[in-house]
Amino acid sequence: MPLSTAATDASSPADASGEQLIRRFAWQAVDMLDWLAQFGGETDGGVTRLLYSPEWQQAQTALSRRMLQLGFEPYYDEAGNLFGRLAGKQPDSRAVLTGSHIDTVLHGGRYDGAYGIIAGLIAAAYLRERYGQPLRSIEIVAFAEEEGSRFPLTFWGSGNATRIYSADNPPPVRDADGVTLADAMHAAGFGLNRFEPAGRNDWEAFVELHIEQGSVLERERCAVGIVQGIVGQQRFTFEVTGVSNHAGTTPMGDRQDALCGASEMILAVREEAVKFGDPMVATVGQLTVVSGASNVVPGHVHFTMDARHPDPTELDLFCRTIEKRLERLAGRSGLSLTSRRWMTAAPIPMNAELAAAGESSCRARGLSFRSMYSGAGHDAQLFAAVCPTAMIFVPSRAGISHSPDEHTEPEQLGAGIAVLADLLHSLAYR
Amino acid sequence: MPLSTAATDASSPADASGEQLIRRFAWQAVDMLDWLAQFGGETDGGVTRLLYSPEWQQAQTALSRRMLQLGFEPYYDEAGNLFGRLAGKQPDSRAVLTGSHIDTVLHGGRYDGAYGIIAGLIAAAYLRERYGQPLRSIEIVAFAEEEGSRFPLTFWGSGNATRIYSADNPPPVRDADGVTLADAMHAAGFGLNRFEPAGRNDWEAFVELHIEQGSVLERERCAVGIVQGIVGQQRFTFEVTGVSNHAGTTPMGDRQDALCGASEMILAVREEAVKFGDPMVATVGQLTVVSGASNVVPGHVHFTMDARHPDPTELDLFCRTIEKRLERLAGRSGLSLTSRRWMTAAPIPMNAELAAAGESSCRARGLSFRSMYSGAGHDAQLFAAVCPTAMIFVPSRAGISHSPDEHTEPEQLGAGIAVLADLLHSLAYR
Repeated sequence: MPLSTAATDASSPADASGEQLIRRFAWQAVDMLDWLAQFGGETDGGVTRLLYSPEWQQAQTALSRRMLQLGFEPYYDEAGNLFGRLAGKQPDSRAVLTGSHIDTVLHGGRYDGAYGIIAGLIAAAYLRERYGQPLRSIEIVAFAEEEGSRFPLTFWGSGNATRIYSADNPPPVRDADGVTLADAMHAAGFGLNRFEPAGRNDWEAFVELHIEQGSVLERERCAVGIVQGIVGQQRFTFEVTGVSNHAGTTPMGDRQDALCGASEMILAVREEAVKFGDPMVATVGQLTVVSGASNVVPGHVHFTMDARHPDPTELDLFCRTIEKRLERLAGRSGLSLTSRRWMTAAPIPMNAELAAAGESSCRARGLSFRSMYSGAGHDAQLFAAVCPTAMIFVPSRAGISHSPDEHTEPEQLGAGIAVLADLLHSLAYR
Repeated sequence: MPLSTAATDASSPADASGEQLIRRFAWQAVDMLDWLAQFGGETDGGVTRLLYSPEWQQAQTALSRRMLQLGFEPYYDEAGNLFGRLAGKQPDSRAVLTGSHIDTVLHGGRYDGAYGIIAGLIAAAYLRERYGQPLRSIEIVAFAEEEGSRFPLTFWGSGNATRIYSADNPPPVRDADGVTLADAMHAAGFGLNRFEPAGRNDWEAFVELHIEQGSVLERERCAVGIVQGIVGQQRFTFEVTGVSNHAGTTPMGDRQDALCGASEMILAVREEAVKFGDPMVATVGQLTVVSGASNVVPGHVHFTMDARHPDPTELDLFCRTIEKRLERLAGRSGLSLTSRRWMTAAPIPMNAELAAAGESSCRARGLSFRSMYSGAGHDAQLFAAVCPTAMIFVPSRAGISHSPDEHTEPEQLGAGIAVLADLLHSLAYR
């Protein structure tokens, strides 16, 4: 699949050598991703970098050195977010920010988060080489944390940068070993007033480049996804109660089997989501048979449901429909059902002008693209509230993420960086 | 429902006062069950007596004193089985044994096991009072263990008495605190060559009276169940493998959701069991979503199936049908399935002559009865291999067992004891 053709839009950094540029970006990206994956790297190609862990500290330290080598001015903020600054000609201008998170899930891949950081460095270094010093400062960020894989908390990095959290007053959460977020942060040297304050309000714009973590771009053979918005979510726990009984002495007709009931409900959730149609998704990801034993008819089962849609009205309608349908299913089987919604996140639109600029870039470069929603949460959703924010996706092979099997082809990596460079150019040089 | 009418069979202990006798047995049973439930008794009416625990020791000690008061000669065997002996006139005769197990499940009821023991004492005391010394010795046994609730091992008590296990060489199993069966046994004073050897071969017959633990007798308004045999069992673990993926970024059509697959399989197991018809029962009692998280499409699920039927051909056919059907379901959803059978127990028939004698007793006493299979395992199944063995059921309210809610009406308790007395009379006095 040819991702790019020679483009001729003189107003962008694309030029007659567009394909060569993407190839150059591609091999720079592969090289830097290989290099970054060694910090927390595992023998099977997986990567684990938990917030403030030794591997995380090694990665941030190495990255700050690399920033310096590439001509960026590196500095940390109090939360441990690492920035590389390319100062603009306008000394007091607001900063054009790009990047993503440096942390990973347990045994994750080498692309999620890391790609957005190294892409920012490659794109900004290219812009400086080709166009010189920007008007506005460009900053590349490696956010401390996004995944929630060490502490039961997500977006700690971007949350500090957007003043949702403060490193001065971390939430009282603990990791699996009982270590508090505050203690882990202090042990890594952050939150002790040694670095720049994390909370700022001088963001001109934020652009995040990320792997899709889904299979839409691959299936539709698109090089680039222009993110219109991040879907809304609702999460529920359903509890099904029947009658626990002896597996040998209870005839089939006398049973009020909570697991059979839950099975009907799980299939109803899937059927209803399919009926609503894309982009509706609904998932039952956890299920517990309380006091389950192979020789006991289950009396009590609980399971979760995660439902997502970009349109809050559709999402509400889906969840209400499911609640009613599961209630009917329970009643029909002599089971009782309780339902508890424990998470609601509204959909978050990305900036329309920046999205349009991303589409223009793709057209100018002859890159196939589609407009799409992100089904996953990203650092970009916190910036959307404080400045114009854009998000660009590149394909994930087989839609796989959070796994050592994460993969994106080099040329696809390069195409994403070219679009990022175009956006940074339009934001920082005009 | 009148359980008994005046009966006139002069060859049995039933007489013109048959109803009064059942009422007398009933109140003796209620009194002794109340008394026995205090050992390991809990505030909500539950009972926990784990093998060799202090509560278990208190119960056996109190029971041995009660045996002495009632005129039985109490003694322990090396495994901790407690016997109360009513010596027969024929000094070297084989022993007619009745009784059940003294141990309970965690937070169990006051009837399971205990009823068979106190019923034996009441029935044998009545026979001696009415007919004098028997020809053959009658022994009442409180088996040390049947439930498998402390150690991962069942039938330790009856297994010792029937030489399947030996207290000299206990299996190397441990309880939840890591204590071995050997250590627990020795701490309680058993297995140290202080008591009678447990393994014997002088059993004339064994009769076990037990609550049904199902709802068949209650539903059919029968006072007594005459057990034809104990059903065969097969237990399986099925593992369903799909693809674990992001709940937000994976469209419904792209999923290989192992939990949706397992849900279809669970409903197929139920449907197939209903199609085979009573007495086929099949239960999925345990299910685990491996690495389950609310925001992850499940990639790996395993669940158990417990299938039971008195006819081994039907049971085999059912299990083979299920394996094929689940295989097809998996294939249709792009999932893979592995199946492992980890338990097979053949059906065990009870002695037909003793069963017929039980039916005659019911007819003579005007007690409604039905012939039935036991869906649960019982100590009687071990004796069936070594001597003529009978098993008598009384109703369980709402089919509930292994719960503080176990209940059997006093008159139902009394009716069962009357039938037991008739069987012991025919075995020990003729």
